[in-house]
Amino acid sequence: MTAPTGRRRPAYDAASLLTVAVAEFNTRGYDATSMEDLSRAAGITKSSFYHHVSGKEELLKAALTRALDGLFGILSEPESLSGPALDRLRHIIYRQVEVLQSELPYVTLLLRVRGNTETERWALARRRAFDASIASLVAEAVADGEVRAGVEPSLAARLLSGTVNSISEWYRPGRPGSDALPGEVVRIVGEGIIPPA
Amino acid sequence: MTAPTGRRRPAYDAASLLTVAVAEFNTRGYDATSMEDLSRAAGITKSSFYHHVSGKEELLKAALTRALDGLFGILSEPESLSGPALDRLRHIIYRQVEVLQSELPYVTLLLRVRGNTETERWALARRRAFDASIASLVAEAVADGEVRAGVEPSLAARLLSGTVNSISEWYRPGRPGSDALPGEVVRIVGEGIIPPA
Repeated sequence: MTAPTGRRRPAYDAASLLTVAVAEFNTRGYDATSMEDLSRAAGITKSSFYHHVSGKEELLKAALTRALDGLFGILSEPESLSGPALDRLRHIIYRQVEVLQSELPYVTLLLRVRGNTETERWALARRRAFDASIASLVAEAVADGEVRAGVEPSLAARLLSGTVNSISEWYRPGRPGSDALPGEVVRIVGEGIIPPA
Repeated sequence: MTAPTGRRRPAYDAASLLTVAVAEFNTRGYDATSMEDLSRAAGITKSSFYHHVSGKEELLKAALTRALDGLFGILSEPESLSGPALDRLRHIIYRQVEVLQSELPYVTLLLRVRGNTETERWALARRRAFDASIASLVAEAVADGEVRAGVEPSLAARLLSGTVNSISEWYRPGRPGSDALPGEVVRIVGEGIIPPA
């Protein structure tokens, strides 16, 4: 991540502390990360750290908000709001992959939330609301005859988000093929991952 | 899980402690779970707990071994070893979903491993070896002309395991449709999650 190295104490602000904190949360897990761990990773004292933030839950909330804003932002894009349901779905999936790529640490953290704190339960509820929007679009596409009959909307929505979200487990920025990934994912959700010849 | 309730101290053995421990690891995260947490969840003293196991890493190793044995067992089934590559792939995916369903807490734990301890790094290496077998089968299916040309084997293998593994996030035993799930997943990896009509 962007944690500075070297001897001089860096001039930290809330944004750079967030970057450091998200990296720690993703490495250790949120529950296992202490304010001591965060101050050590940032290279500042615990009291300096508390000068910037009230505690680790504030950082968690800021990080999850960033991921959720990215995802919910997609739903209000023009291409998500009008046109055939299947085209809207494809647009949303394409953009979900793009948001995952550009906001990788934040989305990764969101996907690992367990629900042990109020902030985590809030984020889980927001994720469920996002998935419900997808399920409702799948249902619309099936009802309109754009998606093959027999596709069960809630299972399809779960597998769609599972497939997209799993990318956070291995994607690293700058890999060859990164630019093609959103389009490739849209292709495979319509044609299959291993379509017969 | 199967943790007994009620007042009498249960007669615990290593197997039931494993069940309790895996549930705790999945709820809190492995790093954040202490031997105190485990003894409390099991309803026995810490010293009784140490009578059965050397520490939490021993329980982690036993749990991950159970998940990995289930998955690697698939690769030596006759249907995984002979026949067209695409048929072998389909069999493996079908069985992966079945193993995930029957060994849900163990597979869930395996999928959440981060690599912070030697045991976790061992499990990650085994997971990578499993995924490499899948990638090699996809490559074979593409080379044999069974899978549409243009499918990139390592991306396909990653998305295959991502799709299957994501089921652990929402699957609960006894849901309606559980029996049909392995077949449904095999269908969607060949035809798409939202195949056009």
